[in-house]
Formats: sequence, C-alpha cells, structure tokens
Amino acid sequence: MFYQVQQLINPIVDDEPDPSAANALQEGLGGQFGEMRTMMQYMFQGFNFRGDAIPYRDLIQAIFMEEISHVELISKTISRLLDGAPGYAGSKFEAPGAKGEATLNMAKEQMNPHHFIVGAQCALPVDAAGNPWLGSYVHANGNLTLDLLDNLVLESTGRLQKCRIYQMSDNKTLRATVAFLIARDEAHEMAFAKALETLGVDWATLLPIPKFDSSKYPEVKKLIDAGINREQYHFRLDGSTMDKIFKGPAPANDGTELVALDKPREAFDIPIEAERPEEFSPGLDPELQELADALVVAKEKVSKKNGRH
Amino acid sequence: MFYQVQQLINPIVDDEPDPSAANALQEGLGGQFGEMRTMMQYMFQGFNFRGDAIPYRDLIQAIFMEEISHVELISKTISRLLDGAPGYAGSKFEAPGAKGEATLNMAKEQMNPHHFIVGAQCALPVDAAGNPWLGSYVHANGNLTLDLLDNLVLESTGRLQKCRIYQMSDNKTLRATVAFLIARDEAHEMAFAKALETLGVDWATLLPIPKFDSSKYPEVKKLIDAGINREQYHFRLDGSTMDKIFKGPAPANDGTELVALDKPREAFDIPIEAERPEEFSPGLDPELQELADALVVAKEKVSKKNGRH
Amino acid sequence: MFYQVQQLINPIVDDEPDPSAANALQEGLGGQFGEMRTMMQYMFQGFNFRGDAIPYRDLIQAIFMEEISHVELISKTISRLLDGAPGYAGSKFEAPGAKGEATLNMAKEQMNPHHFIVGAQCALPVDAAGNPWLGSYVHANGNLTLDLLDNLVLESTGRLQKCRIYQMSDNKTLRATVAFLIARDEAHEMAFAKALETLGVDWATLLPIPKFDSSKYPEVKKLIDAGINREQYHFRLDGSTMDKIFKGPAPANDGTELVALDKPREAFDIPIEAERPEEFSPGLDPELQELADALVVAKEKVSKKNGRH
Amino acid sequence: MFYQVQQLINPIVDDEPDPSAANALQEGLGGQFGEMRTMMQYMFQGFNFRGDAIPYRDLIQAIFMEEISHVELISKTISRLLDGAPGYAGSKFEAPGAKGEATLNMAKEQMNPHHFIVGAQCALPVDAAGNPWLGSYVHANGNLTLDLLDNLVLESTGRLQKCRIYQMSDNKTLRATVAFLIARDEAHEMAFAKALETLGVDWATLLPIPKFDSSKYPEVKKLIDAGINREQYHFRLDGSTMDKIFKGPAPANDGTELVALDKPREAFDIPIEAERPEEFSPGLDPELQELADALVVAKEKVSKKNGRH
Amino acid sequence: MFYQVQQLINPIVDDEPDPSAANALQEGLGGQFGEMRTMMQYMFQGFNFRGDAIPYRDLIQAIFMEEISHVELISKTISRLLDGAPGYAGSKFEAPGAKGEATLNMAKEQMNPHHFIVGAQCALPVDAAGNPWLGSYVHANGNLTLDLLDNLVLESTGRLQKCRIYQMSDNKTLRATVAFLIARDEAHEMAFAKALETLGVDWATLLPIPKFDSSKYPEVKKLIDAGINREQYHFRLDGSTMDKIFKGPAPANDGTELVALDKPREAFDIPIEAERPEEFSPGLDPELQELADALVVAKEKVSKKNGRH
Amino acid sequence: MFYQVQQLINPIVDDEPDPSAANALQEGLGGQFGEMRTMMQYMFQGFNFRGDAIPYRDLIQAIFMEEISHVELISKTISRLLDGAPGYAGSKFEAPGAKGEATLNMAKEQMNPHHFIVGAQCALPVDAAGNPWLGSYVHANGNLTLDLLDNLVLESTGRLQKCRIYQMSDNKTLRATVAFLIARDEAHEMAFAKALETLGVDWATLLPIPKFDSSKYPEVKKLIDAGINREQYHFRLDGSTMDKIFKGPAPANDGTELVALDKPREAFDIPIEAERPEEFSPGLDPELQELADALVVAKEKVSKKNGRH
Repeated sequence: MFYQVQQLINPIVDDEPDPSAANALQEGLGGQFGEMRTMMQYMFQGFNFRGDAIPYRDLIQAIFMEEISHVELISKTISRLLDGAPGYAGSKFEAPGAKGEATLNMAKEQMNPHHFIVGAQCALPVDAAGNPWLGSYVHANGNLTLDLLDNLVLESTGRLQKCRIYQMSDNKTLRATVAFLIARDEAHEMAFAKALETLGVDWATLLPIPKFDSSKYPEVKKLIDAGINREQYHFRLDGSTMDKIFKGPAPANDGTELVALDKPREAFDIPIEAERPEEFSPGLDPELQELADALVVAKEKVSKKNGRH
Repeated sequence: MFYQVQQLINPIVDDEPDPSAANALQEGLGGQFGEMRTMMQYMFQGFNFRGDAIPYRDLIQAIFMEEISHVELISKTISRLLDGAPGYAGSKFEAPGAKGEATLNMAKEQMNPHHFIVGAQCALPVDAAGNPWLGSYVHANGNLTLDLLDNLVLESTGRLQKCRIYQMSDNKTLRATVAFLIARDEAHEMAFAKALETLGVDWATLLPIPKFDSSKYPEVKKLIDAGINREQYHFRLDGSTMDKIFKGPAPANDGTELVALDKPREAFDIPIEAERPEEFSPGLDPELQELADALVVAKEKVSKKNGRH
Repeated sequence: MFYQVQQLINPIVDDEPDPSAANALQEGLGGQFGEMRTMMQYMFQGFNFRGDAIPYRDLIQAIFMEEISHVELISKTISRLLDGAPGYAGSKFEAPGAKGEATLNMAKEQMNPHHFIVGAQCALPVDAAGNPWLGSYVHANGNLTLDLLDNLVLESTGRLQKCRIYQMSDNKTLRATVAFLIARDEAHEMAFAKALETLGVDWATLLPIPKFDSSKYPEVKKLIDAGINREQYHFRLDGSTMDKIFKGPAPANDGTELVALDKPREAFDIPIEAERPEEFSPGLDPELQELADALVVAKEKVSKKNGRH
Repeated sequence: MFYQVQQLINPIVDDEPDPSAANALQEGLGGQFGEMRTMMQYMFQGFNFRGDAIPYRDLIQAIFMEEISHVELISKTISRLLDGAPGYAGSKFEAPGAKGEATLNMAKEQMNPHHFIVGAQCALPVDAAGNPWLGSYVHANGNLTLDLLDNLVLESTGRLQKCRIYQMSDNKTLRATVAFLIARDEAHEMAFAKALETLGVDWATLLPIPKFDSSKYPEVKKLIDAGINREQYHFRLDGSTMDKIFKGPAPANDGTELVALDKPREAFDIPIEAERPEEFSPGLDPELQELADALVVAKEKVSKKNGRH
Repeated sequence: MFYQVQQLINPIVDDEPDPSAANALQEGLGGQFGEMRTMMQYMFQGFNFRGDAIPYRDLIQAIFMEEISHVELISKTISRLLDGAPGYAGSKFEAPGAKGEATLNMAKEQMNPHHFIVGAQCALPVDAAGNPWLGSYVHANGNLTLDLLDNLVLESTGRLQKCRIYQMSDNKTLRATVAFLIARDEAHEMAFAKALETLGVDWATLLPIPKFDSSKYPEVKKLIDAGINREQYHFRLDGSTMDKIFKGPAPANDGTELVALDKPREAFDIPIEAERPEEFSPGLDPELQELADALVVAKEKVSKKNGRH
Repeated sequence: MFYQVQQLINPIVDDEPDPSAANALQEGLGGQFGEMRTMMQYMFQGFNFRGDAIPYRDLIQAIFMEEISHVELISKTISRLLDGAPGYAGSKFEAPGAKGEATLNMAKEQMNPHHFIVGAQCALPVDAAGNPWLGSYVHANGNLTLDLLDNLVLESTGRLQKCRIYQMSDNKTLRATVAFLIARDEAHEMAFAKALETLGVDWATLLPIPKFDSSKYPEVKKLIDAGINREQYHFRLDGSTMDKIFKGPAPANDGTELVALDKPREAFDIPIEAERPEEFSPGLDPELQELADALVVAKEKVSKKNGRH
C-alpha cells in the first residue's frame, strides 16, 4: 500500500512562462525514456519480482516510489512553464473571449496545441513530439540481471536526453527541475550499476552515461555539492534492505561513496496553481462556486499545513 | 512525495492456476477502463489541479493512492493465476527444456503468449486483447465538473467490466480480487457522484452502474456486509480534507452512509512469488546466486516483517 | 446532409451462434481493408474533392453512402453470431452470476474476449487480431487518378479477404453477409476500374481480383444471378451524375453490363436484438425499466413501421 | 440504409486562409473528443442497441446522422482555411515548382506538414497534434445508462475544447463553424442529459459544461437567438420516436424548452473547391482532362442543382 | 549499397505444420526485441554514426547485414510452419470453397487469424500478440557507449525470449531456426559486450544472458560445437575493420575465443514455397497463368542456380 | 543473404542546414508511403513469395535491395540538413552548455524536437508529423496481381509526396536527394506497371502518377537525361531473371525503353559525419577516446577505401 504527503521533492523556481521549454520537458515526462516509463517499469518489476533476493526488489521499489514524485515535479514544472502563457487578463467569472477576443491566439501555433485544447495549460501523458505514452515502453522480463541492465540503459538514456534539454533554454523554472533530474538519474545509474557490481561487473570508467563533468552546469553543481547524485532514499514506512546493495564506493569509480537514506533530507511546498478562466479551469460559475465554497471553510489551515517541513 | 508499506490491500486467495482468467483480468489492469487508467487519470488530475477547492483535489488524490494498491493487487493476482501454469518440475539450476523437452508446450496456445514469452508468467501493461496501455486513455481536462463526471463514467465502466469478468470463472484467486474491485469501484462511484451532488446533482436511483444487487455474488456480499463499498481512505500522512465531501448519505439513495477513513481497516501479507526456472526468472546460475546470497543474510527477518499487521 | 431509413441492405439469415466466425468477420468491419476503412476513405475523398469533375465525386460519394449500410450489416451480423453464445438462461431482472455461477465461463477463451468484456456480445471497431481501427488507414491524396487506383486496390484487398473468410465457416448467418459483400466489392472494383477506363486504361482480363469464378460459392451465385455484382446505387435524394461513369460494358471484359440505380431494389427489416442480462445490457433494473417504459407506449406501432418495404 | 443530399448543415463563411487555425480545428474533427468520435460512437451504439427502448435508440441514431454532416462541415472548413495558403499562382497545366521555384516553401513549417504532403491542403483523420484517429475512442458498452452518461461526457468535452479553440483566432471561416458546433454540442448535451432525466436524474444547475454564458460569443449568440442550441433533428425518412425524450424543459433548468424537428430549418450550398496544381490535385494533365471533360457535359446544371434550398 | 544472394543463412528443416508455434515465433520476427528491431536498430545506428571510430560502426553494420538474413530465415520458417495448415487439397485452378466447403475452417480459431486472412499463410510484421511492429522500438541515441549497452540489452532480451520459445514445441522446423538464433544472439551479445570491454568494462561471469548452459538444448549443442556462437561475419564486399574489436577472448570469460569471418562458412538453398489456391496465392487463373508462364521459360535453370553453394 | 558496400547510390550535395526541410523529408523515410515502407513491403513480398513465377519475385527483390540504399541516402540527407543546425562551437571535450549556455536553444522550437532530444541531429523512424513507423503499413497479400497493383499505388503515392516536398525548399542538399527519388520512383512505377502489362493491362497515358513533365525540375532533368528513370538494377551477386519483365517499351507509352542493369552505373562516397559534442555524440571523454583510438590505427587507410569507385 501507498501513502502520500503533499510535498514536492524539489522546489519549483520562479521564472517567465516558456511553452516551448514545457514541450521539450514533456519528453522527460511522457517520452519513451521519461519518468512515466521509469515509474511504471520499476512498479511492474517490483510487483512481478520472483524469488527471495529481497534487497534487489527493495532497491527497485525504492526508485519506483521516487519516480512518482519525479512525475509530480515535472508535471508541476510543465504547468508553471505553460501557465499564463496566453496572458489572459479577464477576471474569474468573465466569459473568456467574450465580444470575440482571440484570448488564446498564440496557442494555436505552440509546439503542442493539446497543452491548450486538451489540457488546461498543464502536463500531458505524451512525449515532446505529441505521441501518447505506450505500455510497451515498460520492460519487465523477470530475469534479474537483464532487468538491472535494462534499467541502467533506461536511466542513462533519460539522463542523456535531459542533458540535451538542459541546453535548450536558460529558463530557471526549467533548469531547476532538469538539473535535479540529471543529478537523480545519475544516482539511479549508480544504483543499478552497483547492483550489477554485486554480480561481478566492473564498470571501470564507463559511467555515468553520458560521460562528462555535469558540475559544469551551475544548477547541477549545487546538487552535486550537496551529494544529491550519490544518495538513494527508500520511502518505506516499514524499513528496507536496499542498503545491502546501495553502499560503498560508487560504480563510477571516481572516489565517491553511496549513501542510503529513508527519505530526502528536504521537502518542499506544493504551490496552488492559479485558476485559468480562459481554459474554463476549474470553470465553476458563481452558482457552482458558492456550492463548492461551502466545503472549503478550512481552506487557510490546509494551505498552511502544505508549507515547507 | 510518496511512501510505501510492503502490504496488500486485499489478500490473494489460493486456488489452481487459470491462465485464461489471468488474461481476462488484464482488462482490469491495462484496459482502457482498468486500474492503470484510474491510477494515472487521478494522478494527472491531482498534479494538474487548479484553484483552491482543495477537498475535491484531496478526494481525487486519495483515490489515486488507492489505485496504486489496486494495480499491485491485480498484478499479484495475475501472476498467481499464471504461476506454475506449465507445471514445469525442474529444479532451480537445471536447464529448462534440457534434452529437448517442450517444457512450456501449453504456452503457445494461451490467450496471450506474451505472458510466457515477454513476461515470466506475470502481469503485463496490456488489456485482455493484448493491446498495450495508451497515454490517451487519461482524461484530465482541468474543468472540475467535467473531470468529476468523466471519473464517474470511468469507475462505472470499470465496475461493469469487472461484473462481466466475475462471471467468467469461479476460480477463487480470481474471484477474491474481482469481488473486492467491484465493491471498491462502487465506493469510487459514490465518491465522484457525491462530489457532483455537492454541486447540485440528484442521482435519484440511477446508481450504482451497473444497477443490480451485487450482494448476490457471495464474494461481494461479505465485503458489502463489512461496509467496504461505502468507505474511502485518504492515505495521507499529513491529513486530508476529503471528508468535507465524502460523508453523509450515499448518492445511491439507498439509505446507506459514506464513511471516510485514513486507511483501510486491514492490510495483508505480500507473498514472495516462486522462482520459475523455465522462464529464467530470476535466472541466477550458481555463481551469480552465490554473489546475490551474500546480500541476503537478513532474509528471514525481512520476510517476517512483511507479515500481517 | 445525411438521412436514414431503419432498413438493412441485406437480410440477416438465422443460424447458430459462432463467436470465432464473428471474430473473423471483424476483419471485414474494423480491419485495414474493412468497411470502416472504405466508408471513411470515400467520405474523406468526397469531402476533400477538388475541381469540377463532378461525376467522379458523385461515384465516390455513392459508394460512401453504401458503405455505411455495409458497416451496419456487418455489425448486426457480428452481434448475431455472438448473441447468446454463452447460453445464459437467467431472466431479465435476475442478477447474472448470482450464487456464483460462472455464467460467461466460455467467454474468457474466445478469440477476442473484448466481445464479452468491453462490448455486450456486439461488434467492435477492431480487426480480427484485436487491433483498434486507425485513422491512417484512410488514403485521400487529392490526386484523382491515384485516389481511384488506391480505391481499386482497397476493394480488391477487401474482396480477397472476404473470399478467405467465406471458407472459414459454413455458418449461414456469416455466409449470407460475406457472400453479399463479395458481390458488392466486385461491383465497387468495377466502379473504380471503370472510372480509370474513362481515363484510358484497358484492364484486359485482370479483373476482378481475386480472379476466380465466385459463382462457385452457392450464396454468391444467387446474388450474381440477380445482377448484384454489376449494379451501383447513388443514394442521393437530389440526383447524381454517377451514371456518366457507371454504365456500359463492365471493365472485367466478360460481356456483362453496368447498371446504375438510385437505391437497391430491395430493403430489409432490422431485427431488434435481444436483451442480454449477463452483460447488463441494456441493464435497466425494475425501477429504471418502469421509467423507460413510460416512453415506449407506442412500441408496437414502431416495430411495425420497421418492417420490410 | 442511408441517403445523402449535397448540402451543408451550416454555411462556410469567407475569410483569409489560416493554416494554424485549420490545425487547431483538426482536434474537433479527428481528436479523441472530435466529430469522428461522436459519429462513430453513436453509430456503434445504434447498430449494437439491445432491447426495445426504441426512443433512446432513435435519439442516439438521430445524433449519429447529424454528426456525419458535422464531419462534412469541419472538413470543408479545414480545407478552406488551408486552401491557397501557399498562394501558388501557377496556371492549371503548368508544372508547379518548374524552374526550381519553392512554391510550397511555407508548408514545411506549418503545424502539421501532412496537410501539404499527405493531403492536398485538406482535412485529415488526425487530431491537432497529428495523431491518427483511433478505434478505441469509441465507447459502446451496451449498458444504456452508462452509454448515455458517456455520451454526455463526450459532448461536454467536445464543447469545452471548441470553446477553447474559439478563442484561438478571430478568423471568420473558423468562427462560423466553431460557433455552430458550440451551439450544437450544447443541444446534444441537453439530449443525453434529458435522456438521463427520464431515468430520474436532476441536473440542477450543472449544465451545460463548460458552464458560462456562451451568448457572449457574438457568433454563438445569433445561433442561440435562433434556438439552434435547443433543437434536435431526427433525419429519418421513415419517422422517429426520438421526441418521446427530446421535449419539454431543457435539463439546463434555465427556462428553455426542447424542440424536436425532422431536419434543420435551413440547408446550405456546398462550394466546389478550387483545383490546387501545386498539390497535383486533381492533377489531370491536358490529355486526361480531355477524357474527364467528356463526362461533364452537364456540369452547369449540376452546380445549379447544388444551390441553396 | 546492398547486394543479395538467393541463399539462406541456415536451412529450413522439414516437419509437420504447427501454426501456434508459427505464432510464437512471430515474437522473434516482429516483436519489440525481434529481428526486425535488431535489423532496423543497427541500420539506423550505422547510417547515423558520428565520428571516426570506424571499427565500432563496421561491427554494428556487420550485424545489420546478418539481421536481414535472420528476418528472411524466420519468415521462411513461419511460412513453413503455417503452410498447408488447413490441408486444402483442391487443385490449382479450382475455386477453393466451391460448393460451399469450409476449406479454411480451422483458420478462424488460430492464434492470429491474420495469418490466414491478411497473409497467405505467411509471416507478418507483428508480434506474438498480433501487435504491429513500431518504429519507436528502434533506439539510436548517437551516444556510442549507450548505443552499445542498448544493443547488449536488445540481444540479451531477444535470446531470453527465444530460449522461452524453444521450450514451447519440439517441432523440428521451429527448433532448427530457434536454436540457430539462440546461438547467434549469443554471438551478438559477445560482440557488443566486447566493444564495451574495449572501453574498459569487465563482465566477469555475468554473460551470456540468460545465464545457463544452452548446450543442453541438443539443436543448440551442434551449433556451439561448430563454433557458431563465437563467430561474426562482416558481409562487406569492400572489407571491414570489425575485427579490430571482434577478436581475442570472449567476454563471457569462459575460455572461448572470438572469430571474425567475411561470411558464414555455409549457405543454404531457399526452397520455392508451394502455391496455396485456398488463399488465392499467387492466384493466377488459367488466362493469367499463361501470360506469366510466357516469361518463365528459363525456370528450371533458375531453380538450379538457387541450389546450395 | 545480403552484402554491403560502403557506398551511396547518389551523392550528398553540400548546402546550408535546413531542419524544417529535414523534417519534411522524414515523410519520405518513415511515412506511410516512405522508403522504410517500400523496403519492408518488398522484403516481405519477396520472402513470402509463393509459386514459381520467379521473374516477378526477382523484380520485387531487386527493388527491395535498392530501397535499403534509398533509406541510407535519405538518412544521410536528413542528418546533413540537421547537422550543425544549432551551430554549437564548443570543442570536442568541452562540456556543452557549460556555464549555463543554452547551446541548443533553437532546438525546442523545431518541427520535431526529437531530432535533437532523441536522436543526435539524425534521421528517425518517424514521419513528418512525428508518428512512428508502423508494421501495418506493409501490404503483402500473397496474391500476385494485387501485390503488383498495391506496389504501383505505393510508388505513385511516394512520388506524389516527393513532388510536393520538392517544392518546399530550394536547399540543394534536399533537392539532390528528392530529385533522385522522384526519378527512381518513376522507374519503380514503370517496373510494377510493366509487370501488370505482362498480365494484359494497357495503361494508355495514365502514367506516371502524378502526371506532369518532371523534367521541368532542373535537378530531375539531369537524371532523366541520364536515363535514371527508365533503368532498374537487380543487385544480385548470383544473377536475376528480372529482365524477363523489365524490358521493352515503358508502360508510360511515351516512346521510352526500359533498361535492366546489374547495378547502378555510378556509386558514391559516404561522408564521415562530424561529431556533435552538444549532443554527446559519440560522447567519448578523453579516457574513453584513448581506449577507442587504440583500435583505429588504420583510420586513414579506411577512409581512403571508402572513396568513389
């Protein structure tokens, strides 16, 4: 069973909207090597695990738990990069486009018009070319060494693509999230490479993939300095044996050490996203709003409780 | 962020393998109206939620959390229904099919041979006709009333399909899981119908869909008697306002009351699934097994910790 | 604009259910060369037609109109072949599977379990391998000679597949429909081949494809004797110039003549399909049934009006 | 069986080409909630209808008939918005791009280059992100209340998306069609909500979805004033019982009344679309043109017959 | 540029038809890890290769060339396993199913009816669950270490699946081909693992995947004894530098050595497949046959030239 | 079996990068009527050929061989049109985007961002709208006349689309390749039309499709003058009977003659594509580069051997 705390694993950093960057980031969410794939692949590998080599299962499931929070982080980042993109200034109960204004005029020429037609300036389960996510992306062969090797390829490809996306914009909202994922994908490369190391493989200097000094990216450097790229969290309320594997020298063979924790050292507020009247989102008219408001007397207390821990 | 406890939301009941039933149950997992869809749809609706009508978001996310455990439950059920199907009796380090035996002979004529070729007699992210799950199944329009109505249709269709699958076999492993899902889908119908009731709708006697006395199914009756079809859990470690909505008379208008809880009243052991040498799963040979075993000294303690709570 | 008469283009002939034959026939409905494709391809070619060579457009649209009635005919045939397959004998307001009977036991091992899980023993928009119909099947290039040639290939492939399906069962319900489609596909081959003949091509003895004496199939022979394979109907309430093309010697060069008509010489009753309680279809319980019945006072008159014309 | 009159359900209004708007409108044609889906969903529900609650079937089939004319209207609108976009000025029998001119230069940077490569500046069976239409969009569960509820969600989502597209351009060709569809989707919401009302549901003030005063859109206001959003047509040449359901107060509970008619009060000319030599559409060279012309002696009379009724 | 010799890379061994085995083998052809994938993945990696590390490109392209002949081998094996399955005994110019015989009666209940409806008892570009092959299976990242690692996972998964298929039947036609592919996939695992070894990795005893003694399979043992699992061919008419990598001790670290050759030591006749009248394949009637025969005067000589070399 | 020579069938002509043109050209590679389809369709038709009408099989397989070299040519052309597009000027071992530069800034707004995120500025197995290639594009019916007619439609549609793409840019890199393909598709139209001529059809003046004087395109004129549009090569090292069909007057009936050859009269160097550090392609760091370089002592000799023949 699974539990939630209304917190983000990394903060959303403020900057201007950038809908093309939002679209590029969709690859990291709904692409063949994006976070929906990692989440679902580790979920299936965990649920389908055979035999009693429990530390390997615990490692895979730990990363599954983390990937849900990555999906959450990317989704929130995409919304923020899209949010307000058309700059509609109408007030809440005004009909958007009343009198025939083309309020969403820019939307029809964005990279993926679905961000404005299908979603309300929010993340979609698609890749950067607009293709819907596919179940066949999930590889869960049931053979332990193969699944570990497949996972290493998955994390490496994910990291490669994010290193490419990093270069596509200097938008701070985008960069904060992408830098975090570059660091975490590296940690996950270490996790699966280490698991294969326990089965005898010596990676020499091959890792991480892509092989370059990612601390040259300023946003990544801060995270590396904080050790984010060598930690793994297990997110288990009932304990985990993941640390039988995730410990000792990193398989990058660069002198660093792996650190297992029960959860990230920090957690962050989840901002409440603004209403977008021009998208009819949430789209309550005064009558319906009044009915909904009747339920939300405790609103203030709730949003406080959502603050930083 | 998200946390896990190594527990099932409903127990796996023992019975003979039944691979065709396993395949039918795939619809409830990877079908257009299956648990992967509900999980991902509520996840996206939660992450993309706009505005401060927090109780609606908390309700949607509560059901998201539960759906992950449904995916887990169905996956485990499918594995169990498939497990041992070919009846291979070779021992662990023996080459399956050695001397040319057609150990998996029956596999090539099963409903979905992928259960034996692609997975190791385990659940797959596909439907009962073998089609991979598709991202476009997810509806997250961003309009609150529409999303609630879409969710009601989703749960109703899911329940209809499970009521049909229930009739396809009297296998106890299948029935225990399907009966539980019929009861829970009804609870989720109540949840979304109630949310629409807060916005004014009166459902009269339309619900649940399909409209029949499901307590005629003996396995469902026990769950109804225990009140499972009128409860909702929030699975939040930091509290939830879901109960602003999920309370009072059920929108089925049958005299029952809705009950909000923080988590299910019971939780269940997750059995360790047997190795399947004929699938090379997990497929460690003596050399690799020795390396893996070195990590698993604490094995016994772990499996105890996984017991019932 | 488009109008309907509640009539079939060919009668449904009675025989036993045969769900595997129903599944084979799905290829003729939702397959790459099935009737949904022909319907949609000619629809798009008609709506996208450029220039004033109106007789070609009128010919294409005439066949579009006919294809909708083919989709109707195949759908009804598939339902009939599936209908009653599980032989459930429960009465209308009884809970199917009550007391735990596996009422739909056979369903989980049928060619496509979706016929029983997703549909209520009815036709689906999929092919015989369970793949959903795809928009990219539609070819509408906008180049007249190419579109005509593509249409000829489409009808020829459709006819080839139906000649193969004909041999897969001697079920009369199946055969009546397949034989009719073999004859009509031949007429459509003639139509597009004739249109290419007006642009100079001489087909010698190549046609029809496949090249054999289909009058050896007894069910087809009757239709050929009635001239069904050399007629075309325009289904236009405001007249058509289709007969500028569809006239004179058939391009099979076998001595036959083409005959243009405004509509088929005969039309047939559409039977009312039985309720299937085990599928919850239509699934009204006594309360809902009473509400629905209040609308259907004129039931008897209606069903009379649906009779043969 | 089905009949055609060469007439549009709403006129095509003249304005400049706008290929990005054409692409946005593709969502309304080939998107998951577009007119191809509504057409095919109601077609399958009608053909697969079980039981004798004929007025519900007649209602569903009436809207099926109308949806074909919506597909026609959107297709024609998309062609018009694309038509002439590259502004090629070559004459009919000239080779486009002769001497190496890049006649279609702008095409390679349009939202969907398929409009110029695959189609001849015409509508395609795809959505606004270029994904082909999918058979699995069609929901035909066979359970009457569920199908009605699913249809209500379908029409509501379609209307939501069109209200978003409305704001994306003030092009008159686009707006005339989108405004008409907003009004008609509202009528269809009323139809399915009313059908559920006959089964007991009271919608209070929830409808239509999205909930706003669409008469603020000038192009929609005219249609509302004419009552277009409260009418339904049955398009049946042999009569219909649809009006057993579609009558009395609208389920929007706003004081309006539903009006059932046999067909729309007006019908409109279908313009003959210009040849596009740069697309080789229709692409007849002088030799082939002469052969085609031989068939079109009655050209003038035909185009007169296509005039307004 | 590319050249062909009309020869097979492994012989087709005679046995009875076995259509279910044919269907299982489709996974090895059109599955996500089948030979169409390997062929296309190495083709794209070769054509898209960047930089001057030519031996790696030559290795990848060598295996590309071989994979085309694997696709050929599997296709021929599938045809043979399907061929004659319905046992139609009609003679060449007889109408199959004449007099209403259900000549293809068994076809409608086979694993994939497309083998009989869409193809003429021949291989299809689909997997064992009937899903069409997808371009997104191809991974060509452009990062050398990642592409090599991805290729290793691809070959390992392909080999795992074939080891599972091997156990599904003792049909000799199936086994001869599957055993050959198990041996060759192992050689390809060695190739990509060796390439990674040149970049520093030490695989210890991890390989091959799956890890077991495949010489326990009698059909594989013969090939291993002949050294087939440690050879690689370059198929280049203008020479190759592949052997800079593919040489020395195998990365399985089992004492074996890698052997580079220009082409396989043996090549085999391609049998001419029988006509199948019941499939209308090739479907020439007497008139068309006479025209075709006019071209085939040199028939005998040709078939001799196709013999063993 | 199949052999390779490291040579191109047409030269890559130098010009500026043009990523939108690269994307349009993807239709010719991975589109429904692109070269991947022709390659795979003729491959399957060849491998699945039934009966002894060997000249038809030899013709189909000859064109299969040529299509692989077309895929190679288009892939190289797309890479060249994309290559260097972002104009990154960093040196080889420098971290791209170091110090936070948005090195790939333009990439996120290109027609298909996958060219930069998924591939390393290289060709992808997708069409111009970003849809992955699909196995169901392949038509191999097994009926000879139908397969020939389908192939004629395929080549005609391919040629039509390329004539449209030709007009989309005057970039010389694009034009050289597209012009060659226009000429070769015409040759292939002639091939399949001629094969149908041997079975009796007379094409009069219908061909080629589209019907226009392509010698008005200067780049095509040179190729026509050289006879490229009337030649066919068999690429068989063991001889071919293709010339039983491909000889005599062209079926365009324009006075030209068909010429059968064993291979093209000329072959061309394959340029070594530049490394793209900003894509981490090939992405070797100094340590890995040193290991790779150890293998490439003979580099100079190799690149000489790749020169023109």
